[in-house]
Amino acid sequence: MVDYVGTTRIAELLAHVGTASFMEALAGEIEVDFCRWHDFDKSPRHAAHSSVGVIELMPISDSKLYTFKYVNGHPKNTHDGLLTVTAFGILADVATGYPLLLSEMTYITALRTAAISALAAQKMARSNSRVMAMIGNGAQSEFQILAFHRMLRIREVRLFDTDKAATEKLLRNLSALKIPDLKIICSKSTAEAARGADIVTTVTADKRNALILTPEMVEPGMHLNAVGGDCPGKTELHIDILRRSDARIVVEYEPQARIEGEIQQLKTTELVIELTDVLCGTKAGRTSDHEVTIFDSVGFALNDFSALRYVYKLNREQSAGRALIDLVPLLNDPKNLWGGLTGTEKPHPAALVGKVPTKPIALV
Amino acid sequence: MVDYVGTTRIAELLAHVGTASFMEALAGEIEVDFCRWHDFDKSPRHAAHSSVGVIELMPISDSKLYTFKYVNGHPKNTHDGLLTVTAFGILADVATGYPLLLSEMTYITALRTAAISALAAQKMARSNSRVMAMIGNGAQSEFQILAFHRMLRIREVRLFDTDKAATEKLLRNLSALKIPDLKIICSKSTAEAARGADIVTTVTADKRNALILTPEMVEPGMHLNAVGGDCPGKTELHIDILRRSDARIVVEYEPQARIEGEIQQLKTTELVIELTDVLCGTKAGRTSDHEVTIFDSVGFALNDFSALRYVYKLNREQSAGRALIDLVPLLNDPKNLWGGLTGTEKPHPAALVGKVPTKPIALV
Repeated sequence: MVDYVGTTRIAELLAHVGTASFMEALAGEIEVDFCRWHDFDKSPRHAAHSSVGVIELMPISDSKLYTFKYVNGHPKNTHDGLLTVTAFGILADVATGYPLLLSEMTYITALRTAAISALAAQKMARSNSRVMAMIGNGAQSEFQILAFHRMLRIREVRLFDTDKAATEKLLRNLSALKIPDLKIICSKSTAEAARGADIVTTVTADKRNALILTPEMVEPGMHLNAVGGDCPGKTELHIDILRRSDARIVVEYEPQARIEGEIQQLKTTELVIELTDVLCGTKAGRTSDHEVTIFDSVGFALNDFSALRYVYKLNREQSAGRALIDLVPLLNDPKNLWGGLTGTEKPHPAALVGKVPTKPIALV
Repeated sequence: MVDYVGTTRIAELLAHVGTASFMEALAGEIEVDFCRWHDFDKSPRHAAHSSVGVIELMPISDSKLYTFKYVNGHPKNTHDGLLTVTAFGILADVATGYPLLLSEMTYITALRTAAISALAAQKMARSNSRVMAMIGNGAQSEFQILAFHRMLRIREVRLFDTDKAATEKLLRNLSALKIPDLKIICSKSTAEAARGADIVTTVTADKRNALILTPEMVEPGMHLNAVGGDCPGKTELHIDILRRSDARIVVEYEPQARIEGEIQQLKTTELVIELTDVLCGTKAGRTSDHEVTIFDSVGFALNDFSALRYVYKLNREQSAGRALIDLVPLLNDPKNLWGGLTGTEKPHPAALVGKVPTKPIALV
């Protein structure tokens, strides 16, 4: 039997742990995994493109665990009341090839994206950062704000989106959370939101080379958390921001960021830093209070690996409500597949206690 | 909500339809799909190798539907009471990227493998074939025998396996089926089973270049259904059988078969035929009663595509017992992911009737 975490269950787990605590703990897992970067078998994502969107598989593994995420990107879905991005994933045991967990990842992707944004900002933003501009108030925005409030001690957020309904939605959700030490301001433009902010987070969904941030909006010492530019032809920052002499650009995985990130606009000879080096301390996230730091995040399979392993652990710890699905046959005689199908072959004894008889996986 | 077919449900569906009828209908679907070969976006499987096995993702799509199968291969699993191969798969809507079905595929892989074996044999074996040798009596064997009994009118099977317990298991399962017009013989060796047989099916699991069939066992007019050789270094036929001047070799997908099939032993200049050409009638499956025909089957993503679409249709037709899982959030406002998680955003009305509001997929 395989553990199953659907949309209902992830909501239960988050209600139990608390969303900000979940993201903070997950950031810890991501940090550990990025610091053992060379343990991972990293491969490019497999993408199936159509005229209206893309379906991708993102696999990664170390010597013990294998994960992949299925994720789609269909910008026109919102017109039909559907999500632009949905995702799910699998955690499997490398030693046996058996899946251990099937989980929804639409929510988990939002959680892990905000977690890694805040983790990077901890190393890159000025330590006295308290004000964040939130450009793009869609599906990702609540998660980003909660993670930065918890992990960076952001105390003022300034909201802007070209879609006023999105800002109203964000405002409604933030008000319901009643966070006592968070000031919320609605700005009239990106420029107004960014003016004097310590951190500018961009999470827009425009599928083109957009100019969400232009050079005159960027001030010395700012940290730019550029989340929305995440595929070829989809960027948010003006190239002159990337080319500032005082800019310091960090990416998750350079080969992928060169194709999908803001840095697709740069020549490959223009240097960037990988997050693993910043997290391990090999390279600094910031070298002065005047530098403009840019985290050019596109989402990498390792973030999902860390997230699936964390959710697997959390789901097992909260045993009440844990669900199993019969995705894999459990047979006493593995050669008697026919007997399993016809009910004449008994299940393996381990099935009766709801787990496959693998050796326990040592979770990092 | 996404349709879910687990191991229990596939057994229910098979009990309802009948296993032989299922495989015959599935063979029809496979034939239709192989005849529109160029509609498909075919890509190599993604393999993650470890010292003890492999985990693979096999994606394929046409303009309407996308599928992938997750499948592992861990030969040593049987020592721990686990299956060597387990699998599951997804059918998704290309237009929206939403998954439509999550299904177990350990059983379905056995069913589709037998279906394509019998389909190929219909075009390749002599039409008066009535006797089949069954070399390898493991997990695949019952499915092969049932498919060949139904689709080729095989009336005598001769069983052989180096593992006597496997043959006893197969004999027990076949006896329970009480097939009145099928004679079952236990042979003492591969040579004895093959002698005078019309068809020889090899489905052994030995992970090396084995010599299950050697040249002196092969008689003019025989059809060899070589299923077990399916990865680099794992073959069943002696190279001299492949190089007989009267041999006619058919494969599912040449680029893959050159790496994984029996023909990995041949030079790439030695010609083979693709199944699509035989099924479309461009090339003959057999040109004389004396020819030795060889179906060198390794399992291709398109077989799984046809199978997942067929199971999706069947599962919806048998609405009693149909299960849905909450793998994807259903939100009235797709930008309000946070509201979905906290229960403040209502689900999209379509969720209440248990389906996503996509346009119905026209199933081929």
